Amino acid sequence: MSGHVYKMIELVGSSPNSTDDAIRNAIARASKTLRNLDWFEVLETRGQLVDGKIAHFQVTLKVGIRLEN
Amino acid sequence: MSGHVYKMIELVGSSPNSTDDAIRNAIARASKTLRNLDWFEVLETRGQLVDGKIAHFQVTLKVGIRLEN
Amino acid sequence: MSGHVYKMIELVGSSPNSTDDAIRNAIARASKTLRNLDWFEVLETRGQLVDGKIAHFQVTLKVGIRLEN
Amino acid sequence: MSGHVYKMIELVGSSPNSTDDAIRNAIARASKTLRNLDWFEVLETRGQLVDGKIAHFQVTLKVGIRLEN
Amino acid sequence: MSGHVYKMIELVGSSPNSTDDAIRNAIARASKTLRNLDWFEVLETRGQLVDGKIAHFQVTLKVGIRLEN
Amino acid sequence: MSGHVYKMIELVGSSPNSTDDAIRNAIARASKTLRNLDWFEVLETRGQLVDGKIAHFQVTLKVGIRLEN
Amino acid sequence: MSGHVYKMIELVGSSPNSTDDAIRNAIARASKTLRNLDWFEVLETRGQLVDGKIAHFQVTLKVGIRLEN
Amino acid sequence: MSGHVYKMIELVGSSPNSTDDAIRNAIARASKTLRNLDWFEVLETRGQLVDGKIAHFQVTLKVGIRLEN
Amino acid sequence: MSGHVYKMIELVGSSPNSTDDAIRNAIARASKTLRNLDWFEVLETRGQLVDGKIAHFQVTLKVGIRLEN
Amino acid sequence: MSGHVYKMIELVGSSPNSTDDAIRNAIARASKTLRNLDWFEVLETRGQLVDGKIAHFQVTLKVGIRLEN
Amino acid sequence: MSGHVYKMIELVGSSPNSTDDAIRNAIARASKTLRNLDWFEVLETRGQLVDGKIAHFQVTLKVGIRLEN
Amino acid sequence: MSGHVYKMIELVGSSPNSTDDAIRNAIARASKTLRNLDWFEVLETRGQLVDGKIAHFQVTLKVGIRLEN
Repeated sequence: MSGHVYKMIELVGSSPNSTDDAIRNAIARASKTLRNLDWFEVLETRGQLVDGKIAHFQVTLKVGIRLEN
Repeated sequence: MSGHVYKMIELVGSSPNSTDDAIRNAIARASKTLRNLDWFEVLETRGQLVDGKIAHFQVTLKVGIRLEN
Repeated sequence: MSGHVYKMIELVGSSPNSTDDAIRNAIARASKTLRNLDWFEVLETRGQLVDGKIAHFQVTLKVGIRLEN
Repeated sequence: MSGHVYKMIELVGSSPNSTDDAIRNAIARASKTLRNLDWFEVLETRGQLVDGKIAHFQVTLKVGIRLEN
Repeated sequence: MSGHVYKMIELVGSSPNSTDDAIRNAIARASKTLRNLDWFEVLETRGQLVDGKIAHFQVTLKVGIRLEN
Repeated sequence: MSGHVYKMIELVGSSPNSTDDAIRNAIARASKTLRNLDWFEVLETRGQLVDGKIAHFQVTLKVGIRLEN
Repeated sequence: MSGHVYKMIELVGSSPNSTDDAIRNAIARASKTLRNLDWFEVLETRGQLVDGKIAHFQVTLKVGIRLEN
Repeated sequence: MSGHVYKMIELVGSSPNSTDDAIRNAIARASKTLRNLDWFEVLETRGQLVDGKIAHFQVTLKVGIRLEN
Repeated sequence: MSGHVYKMIELVGSSPNSTDDAIRNAIARASKTLRNLDWFEVLETRGQLVDGKIAHFQVTLKVGIRLEN
Repeated sequence: MSGHVYKMIELVGSSPNSTDDAIRNAIARASKTLRNLDWFEVLETRGQLVDGKIAHFQVTLKVGIRLEN
Repeated sequence: MSGHVYKMIELVGSSPNSTDDAIRNAIARASKTLRNLDWFEVLETRGQLVDGKIAHFQVTLKVGIRLEN
Repeated sequence: MSGHVYKMIELVGSSPNSTDDAIRNAIARASKTLRNLDWFEVLETRGQLVDGKIAHFQVTLKVGIRLEN
């Protein structure tokens, strides 16, 4: 019998507060509509600047989802 | 309140005419079924050759889509 | 008339036997629910170790799917 | 009429407290002498260790600046 | 006697029309204030989407400038 | 029976007009002396600047050639 | 007389709280058994998800250690 | 309480038979002297050729080892 | 007296059976017309899908050839 | 109190003699007009060939400059 | 009229003395049989160790060759 | 019977004189305590600047060590 298969999706989360909160916001949004979220990997960290200050941190993630057989 | 979350999808557009048209064709196809397309990034440019000429330019894109809350 | 457009999805297949079987398992799972699978590319090869032996090979793939017009 | 042109500069910010503060310190320093800072991208995260503890987090950033026409 | 020394700067040009025009716009803006531009390299091609269409192509370039002795 | 084998060669094409023409010029030159050209991939896009203008676009390609059995 | 020589080791730290704490935990563990830790570089940031929430942040580091002569 | 810490080591396994056996040989050798091997990642696949045939497949791996507290 | 000089060529081998056979087929084809093949490195692993199954594994290799003095 | 902030600039040095001299020439040119040069990183090594010989080694560097508070 | 077309070849030069001599040896060997060598780029620097000393530096180069029209 | 297994370690050597000497110093230090050093690969070349001059070249290496059976 074969092992599990996972699907990877790519998300960008954002937060005015921190890079970790940008990750948490992306995961929270994904878990509203998807089950069996298994792990994530950070691909890129960026941010928007307004008036010389950080308006939003933006973190690009891959999220691994375990598919049902 | 948290910031926006985006989903990235990956597409390959093709065109017999130009790399820019290959990009436009991928975006046009995506906008038939998806709303809130926000930006794209080019990942790879390739092409098919027939009889020593370029039959199709093929451009691989990531497209960012703003998710509704 | 414009050329074809393809969508890329990313999957992780696993197998206790071999890296090639991990690829085959991911493709077999995708073909249950998706038509017009066209090609794949290997992104990463990993594995889980239990008691000093390979419990599962895990191969991450991009799979290209031809979209209908 | 043509679109905007941006200049990218590369900075390394540091902080004894956190990676996010290292980013904020680099942006704060840049905004003392430069206007129209638009976005940043993280290139690298490093740190210095003293007596087995983190003395400074160091984050390398690209910062995008909108040029006036 | 030693050889030439070059400085590299990084620019993002944009255009509503084409990727090549985005490159030309960045070079045109740089040549307003800088002499001895020698070559460029494309680092990244992106674009902004509005109403399912490409509003701007955005091309990130490194530009090499020959320094006077 | 085994499948096809391909050889990859690497070319740099140039054009004063556009990146797409630089690609076409490289392919045209290759097809003068080589048969069975099958596909190409763009590796790098550069250009030479003279008097603040683009003198030549230069595109580096890998070209895949199907070998006869 | 020659300069210093450093050895690099690679560690993965984890924390339920933050990416910075995952880094701190890896450094704390290394400093229990190793002297002369000099700097670190972040290679990768990942995490495990349980019930739609982040169970652990996992950060992969290279750590530079100054060797005694 | 903090999470686990892992050490990564890098190995090259070889085999005259297959890439999978080259991986298995590296893991078998590591498990002779190390406990708590947890996962591996393939970094590179190479091989030596003798008389126009593959004498050895050589696979470079990172192996993750769970450190005891 | 100087050391050896090697030339690298790039090949794509294919096989309906396995990634290792795709490598072997590329090497077998090269050794028909070239002497002094010394080593190979895998650059990329792909495959073609037909009717939801793997029709061909395709492996891109660099092959090192020792040049005669 | 926050830590230091550094600016990175990118230079290409050249020399008819050696790669190390190409690095030294870039640093010598930078130190004519800039203070507080702190470290460099090599990004790329190239060279120009004339009549089958190396006319110039060309080394691309990032140079880190400590900014005054 | 179109611009020049270049072919890139990949070579590994070696030398017991220095990395620069490994480059020079590769170029010297290429210029025995090829005309119009135009530039090179260093891809990789390695070496063989015997009895705890460097037996050979080995440098992998791409060399650009101007094709005649 | 299976083939050899190698362990890779990562070192940073430094020298006030040249990049090649920085490599030699790292190898000399490693050969004081380790046997069966087989090859090295250069990962990164950096340096420290003092008073506008190069104080140390620093070269990061992977070194391959043949393990006894």
